[in-house]
Amino acid sequence: MRKIAVFTSGGDAPGMNALIRAVVRGALSKGIEVYGVLGGYSGMIEGNMLKLGKKETANLISLGGTVLKTSRSKEFMQKGGRAAAAEKLKDYGIEGIIACGGDGTFHGAHDIWLEHQIPIVGTPGTIDNDLYGTDYTIGFDTAINTAAEAIDKIRDTADSHGRVFIVEVMGRHAGFIAMDVGISAGAEFIAVPETVTNLDQLYQRILTQGKQQRTIVIVGEGDEVGGANTFAQILKERYEIDAKVTILGHIQRGGSPTVRDRVLASRLGVAAVDALLAGKTDVMVGEINSEIVYTPLEETWTKRKPINDYLILLADILT
Amino acid sequence: MRKIAVFTSGGDAPGMNALIRAVVRGALSKGIEVYGVLGGYSGMIEGNMLKLGKKETANLISLGGTVLKTSRSKEFMQKGGRAAAAEKLKDYGIEGIIACGGDGTFHGAHDIWLEHQIPIVGTPGTIDNDLYGTDYTIGFDTAINTAAEAIDKIRDTADSHGRVFIVEVMGRHAGFIAMDVGISAGAEFIAVPETVTNLDQLYQRILTQGKQQRTIVIVGEGDEVGGANTFAQILKERYEIDAKVTILGHIQRGGSPTVRDRVLASRLGVAAVDALLAGKTDVMVGEINSEIVYTPLEETWTKRKPINDYLILLADILT
Amino acid sequence: MRKIAVFTSGGDAPGMNALIRAVVRGALSKGIEVYGVLGGYSGMIEGNMLKLGKKETANLISLGGTVLKTSRSKEFMQKGGRAAAAEKLKDYGIEGIIACGGDGTFHGAHDIWLEHQIPIVGTPGTIDNDLYGTDYTIGFDTAINTAAEAIDKIRDTADSHGRVFIVEVMGRHAGFIAMDVGISAGAEFIAVPETVTNLDQLYQRILTQGKQQRTIVIVGEGDEVGGANTFAQILKERYEIDAKVTILGHIQRGGSPTVRDRVLASRLGVAAVDALLAGKTDVMVGEINSEIVYTPLEETWTKRKPINDYLILLADILT
Amino acid sequence: MRKIAVFTSGGDAPGMNALIRAVVRGALSKGIEVYGVLGGYSGMIEGNMLKLGKKETANLISLGGTVLKTSRSKEFMQKGGRAAAAEKLKDYGIEGIIACGGDGTFHGAHDIWLEHQIPIVGTPGTIDNDLYGTDYTIGFDTAINTAAEAIDKIRDTADSHGRVFIVEVMGRHAGFIAMDVGISAGAEFIAVPETVTNLDQLYQRILTQGKQQRTIVIVGEGDEVGGANTFAQILKERYEIDAKVTILGHIQRGGSPTVRDRVLASRLGVAAVDALLAGKTDVMVGEINSEIVYTPLEETWTKRKPINDYLILLADILT
Repeated sequence: MRKIAVFTSGGDAPGMNALIRAVVRGALSKGIEVYGVLGGYSGMIEGNMLKLGKKETANLISLGGTVLKTSRSKEFMQKGGRAAAAEKLKDYGIEGIIACGGDGTFHGAHDIWLEHQIPIVGTPGTIDNDLYGTDYTIGFDTAINTAAEAIDKIRDTADSHGRVFIVEVMGRHAGFIAMDVGISAGAEFIAVPETVTNLDQLYQRILTQGKQQRTIVIVGEGDEVGGANTFAQILKERYEIDAKVTILGHIQRGGSPTVRDRVLASRLGVAAVDALLAGKTDVMVGEINSEIVYTPLEETWTKRKPINDYLILLADILT
Repeated sequence: MRKIAVFTSGGDAPGMNALIRAVVRGALSKGIEVYGVLGGYSGMIEGNMLKLGKKETANLISLGGTVLKTSRSKEFMQKGGRAAAAEKLKDYGIEGIIACGGDGTFHGAHDIWLEHQIPIVGTPGTIDNDLYGTDYTIGFDTAINTAAEAIDKIRDTADSHGRVFIVEVMGRHAGFIAMDVGISAGAEFIAVPETVTNLDQLYQRILTQGKQQRTIVIVGEGDEVGGANTFAQILKERYEIDAKVTILGHIQRGGSPTVRDRVLASRLGVAAVDALLAGKTDVMVGEINSEIVYTPLEETWTKRKPINDYLILLADILT
Repeated sequence: MRKIAVFTSGGDAPGMNALIRAVVRGALSKGIEVYGVLGGYSGMIEGNMLKLGKKETANLISLGGTVLKTSRSKEFMQKGGRAAAAEKLKDYGIEGIIACGGDGTFHGAHDIWLEHQIPIVGTPGTIDNDLYGTDYTIGFDTAINTAAEAIDKIRDTADSHGRVFIVEVMGRHAGFIAMDVGISAGAEFIAVPETVTNLDQLYQRILTQGKQQRTIVIVGEGDEVGGANTFAQILKERYEIDAKVTILGHIQRGGSPTVRDRVLASRLGVAAVDALLAGKTDVMVGEINSEIVYTPLEETWTKRKPINDYLILLADILT
Repeated sequence: MRKIAVFTSGGDAPGMNALIRAVVRGALSKGIEVYGVLGGYSGMIEGNMLKLGKKETANLISLGGTVLKTSRSKEFMQKGGRAAAAEKLKDYGIEGIIACGGDGTFHGAHDIWLEHQIPIVGTPGTIDNDLYGTDYTIGFDTAINTAAEAIDKIRDTADSHGRVFIVEVMGRHAGFIAMDVGISAGAEFIAVPETVTNLDQLYQRILTQGKQQRTIVIVGEGDEVGGANTFAQILKERYEIDAKVTILGHIQRGGSPTVRDRVLASRLGVAAVDALLAGKTDVMVGEINSEIVYTPLEETWTKRKPINDYLILLADILT
C-alpha cells in the first residue's frame, strides 16, 4: 500500500484534526502517502483531494472542527454516487481509506467496501459516544467538558436566583453526554433516553431543594419526555413551577480538544493506518480497556452500547 | 455613619461578588460595619441580613453570581413594601445603603430615598451595559468574553460544515453585547436594536461567502426583526437559506469575572462607600474615561447611552 | 457503622472536593454521619473536625483545591502522633476513616490501621497518577488539561518566534503527566523518568525543525537529565542552542476539575463508603478498566505502575 | 497610495493577528493592496513578503501569536540593514508601512522613516502596556486575564495548604500587569517597579493572615527587589518564612485574545490604514478615552505612562 486517503464526515467533533494529523504522520512513518478528501463523501464524489504532509498537519492537534471539512451527502447514499466516488479514488491511486465519523459515515464506508472493494477502516469521531466497539469516541470528552463548564456558569445564576433551570444537552438517542454532564454538574435530576423519566420524582426534588435554592435539571436531547422546552411546559402546567430553559446547542461540537481526545485521536489514527497495512477492512478501530479493538463496521450501529449502570446509581445517590 | 448595608438585585452579573467584597473592605478601612442583605429587595422586606467581615469576603473576587443572592420583588414596587423594608433597615441601625443592579434596582433605590430618606448609592451591575453614567457596567466584560468564546466554538463547527449560523446574544434593548461580540467573532452580519436591520444585505453577504463557507450572524435579543429563530424563519421563507440557530442564554450571566470586571467592581465598591461618607445619595457611581462619576439615579434610565458609532463602521469594514 | 471521617492529605488535587461531597452523600444515603477532618493528619491530631451534611457539600463538585485543607505532618510520622490522632477519633466516636491523597497519605493510613485498628480506606488523590491499583488518580485529568492549555499558549509564542521552548511539568518520579501532555502538545521531544533521555536525538529534532520553526520540549520533573533549566544549560553548552524555559509549577494543582475527575471522584467516594461498610480496611479503592478494585495500601507504593508502552511509541511516530 | 505592508516585531502579543486582519480588510475597503512581511525586520531585509487578502485573514481574529511571525533583528539596528530593507520595500512598490510592536519596533520604524522617507505608522502591540500614547496596548487585556486565571488556580492550592505563594508576572520595567493582576487575584501584597517595595509590610501581612491562611504575593518582573526567587530568598533569610515560587513566564504571551484585545486591534488596524492615507507618518495610532490619538513615535518611548494612582490605593484598601 503506497497511497491512502483520509476524510471526516457527518457531524464534526473535536479531535478530528488530531486524527488527521496522526493518520498522516503514522502513514509517513511507513513510507505511505496520504491524501485528504475535502468535504466528506461529497468531496469524494467530486475528487476534491489534497496531499497532506508533515507541514500541513503542524499544530492541527489543538484545533477544533475539521480542516478537511465535512458534509452529509445524499448523492453518496445512492449506488451511483458511490461508484463515482470509487472512480475518483482509483484515479488518484488510493489503495485504502480511513474514515472518521459516526454511524452514518460507517454505513457509507461499509457500502463502498462491499461494492468496490476499496479497503476502508473507520475511526469513531462523534461527540455522542454512541458507537459500539469503543469505550469512548473522539470528541466526547471535549463535549462533556464544554457542557459542564457552561453549566457551571448557569449554576452561578441559578444559585443567585434560587431558580429551576432545565438544560438540554446533545447526544441523539444516547444519554452518555447527559449522564456524565449531569453528575459533573451536581444536577438534581438527569433525564436520559435509556431510562424511564419520572416527572413526579423531579417535582419532589424541586420541593426538597426548596423555594430559595436552585434546581438544575439536565435533559439529554433524545429523552422520551422531549427536549428542555417540553420539560418546562409540563412543569408549568402540571406543577405550576416556573423554569428557565437553556439549550446548549452547537457549542458542544466545537473547541480545542481535551487531552483525552487528543491522545485517543492520535492513537486511533496511527492504529487505523496499521490496520489498513495489516489487511483489515470494513472495521472500526476502537479502544476498549486501553486496548485497540477492531469491530466490524456493521456491528458499530446494530449493537447497542449501554450506559454504565453504576452511573445511573451514582446520580441517584449524589442528589 | 457607622453601619451600612449592601445588596444585589435584578439579573445577576459576574463581578457582583467582587463589588460586595470591595464595599466590605472599603467600609472596614473607615471603621464602618457592613451588613449584607440576602435576596435583594425581598430580603430587605424580610430583614434577612448578615454581618460581613474580611473573612466572609475572602476569595469572593473570583466567584461568579452573587453570594447575597438576588430577586425581583413585586412587593417592593408597592409603597407598603418599601415602608416595611425601611423599617427593617432602621431596626438594624443601617444609615446608608449600597445597591448593585440595573435600572429596575435603581428605580427601587430612588423610591426608598424619596420616601424614607435613607441615603442610597447605586453601582451598575448588569451584563447589558445599558446604564447611562458609566462607560461599562460590572459584568459586561465577562459576558462578552463568555459569548465570544462560545461563538469561537460554534465557528469551528460552522467552518467544518460551511453553514449559516445565527447566534442570539443577550443585551435587552441595547446592542452593546451583540456589537462587541459580533466584531470579536468576525461575524459576517451583526443585528442590533440601535440600527435598521437590512435582511437583503445579510442575504448578499451569505451569497458572497459562498456555499462552501460559513456565515456567522450575531443577533442582539432586542433587535427589531426578532430573535434568532425569527431570523432563521425569514431566511428560509424569503431566501430558501437553511440556517442553524443557537441561543446562548444564561451562560452569559455566569462565570468567574474577567480582570476588567474585577477591577471595575473593586473600584466602584470602594467609591460607593466614599460617596455615602461624602453625603451623596440617590446617585449611581460609575466610571467614565477612567474617572469616577456620579449620576442621579433617575438619569441612569431616562438618558440613553448610545453605541459608539465607530463600532458600527468597524463592523462593516471588517466583514 | 454510624459515624465516619473523611480527610485530604499531602499535595492537593482537583477533585478532592468532589470526593468529599460523594463520601458525605454516599454515607448519608446509608444513614451514616460524616465528619470532615480539617488540615489532614495535623488536624486529626488536634481533633479539628466538623460535621458535614448535604448543605455543606453543595457546589463542592466544581471547586478546585480542598475545603478540608491539607498538610504534611511530621508529628503523625511518629507513633505518638498517631496515638494522639486515634484518641481524638475515638473521642468523636469515629468508626471508620476515608483518606484521600497519595503514597505519603497511605503510609500514615496503613500505620494507624496496624497500630489502632481503626478501619481506614484510601482513595487516590494526586495529580501525579503514580499509584498502583487504579488506572487514573483523582486530579490527574485536570492537571494534564491545565498543562496542555498552558502549552498551547506557549506554542503561540514559540511559533511566532521560531524558538526552542523547554517546558517542565510535574509528576514526581513518574512520567504520566509529561507523556500525555507531550503528545497533546504535539511536542517535538518528551523526556520522562521511565526512559533513557537521548539529548543527541533532541538536537537532531531541533535541526530537523529548522531555524525558522519552533521546537517544543516537554520535561517531566523526575527525568534523569534534570529539570528544564538543566536541559537549557546543556543545549547551550553542548550544542549552542538558545532555549526558553518555562516551569509550569503550581497552576497544575489547581482549577475546577474536569468531568473525568468529577465523575471518578464521585464514584470512588461512594465506593469508599461501601467498602468501609463491607468491612474492608487497609485498602485503596481504585478504578481499573471501569471496575472498582481494592488494592492493599502497601501495594499502592511498593508496586510500580508503568507508563503504557503504546504512548512511548506514539510519541515517536507523531513527531 | 496603492500598496502597503504590515508586519509584527519584537515580543509577540495576543491580538496581533486581529490587527493584521483589520489592516488587510481596512485597506481592501479603500482599494489598497496589502503585503505581509514575514519575520519582522529580518524578513523585511530579506524581502520575505506575501500578499494578503480576505481569505488569508479569515479566522485570524481569534488566533494567538502572529501568523506573520516576529523577530529581533540586530542587522536592522545598523544603517546598512535598514537601507537593505528600504530597497526591498521599494522593489515591491510598498508606499506605506504599518508596524505592530513595542518600543524596539518603533525605534526601527522611526529610523526607517528618517532615513528613507517611507511613510510608517505604528500600532501598540505588547502585553506590557508600557507605551505612552494609548490607554491600552494590544495584548495587555489577554495577558492579565491569562495571568489572573493561572493565579486563581494557584490560589486553590495555596488555600488548601495555608501557604505563602510568590508569583512573578511579566511587564518589564512597568507594573501594569502586576497591578491589575494583583488586585484581581485578591493578592495580599503587590510589588511593582513604580513604587518602593516595603518587605516589612509584606511580613506584617503574612503574620496578619496567620499560619493557617494563604498569602498571595504578586511581583512584577521589574520590581526593585528582584524577581520572585529573590523575594522567597529574603523571606527565608530575614523572616524565616517558607514561600513557594511560581514564575508564570511565556503563557502570558499566548492564547486567543479577549474581546477587548480583538476590538482594540480591529479598531487600531483600520485607523492605521486611515492614518497612512491621511498622510500621517512617524506616529503611533493609539486609543485614549475611546478616541483615536496620534503620538509621534519618539514620544511613545521617551514619555512615561504612569500607573493610575487609584489602583495603588485600591490595592491597599482591599487587602
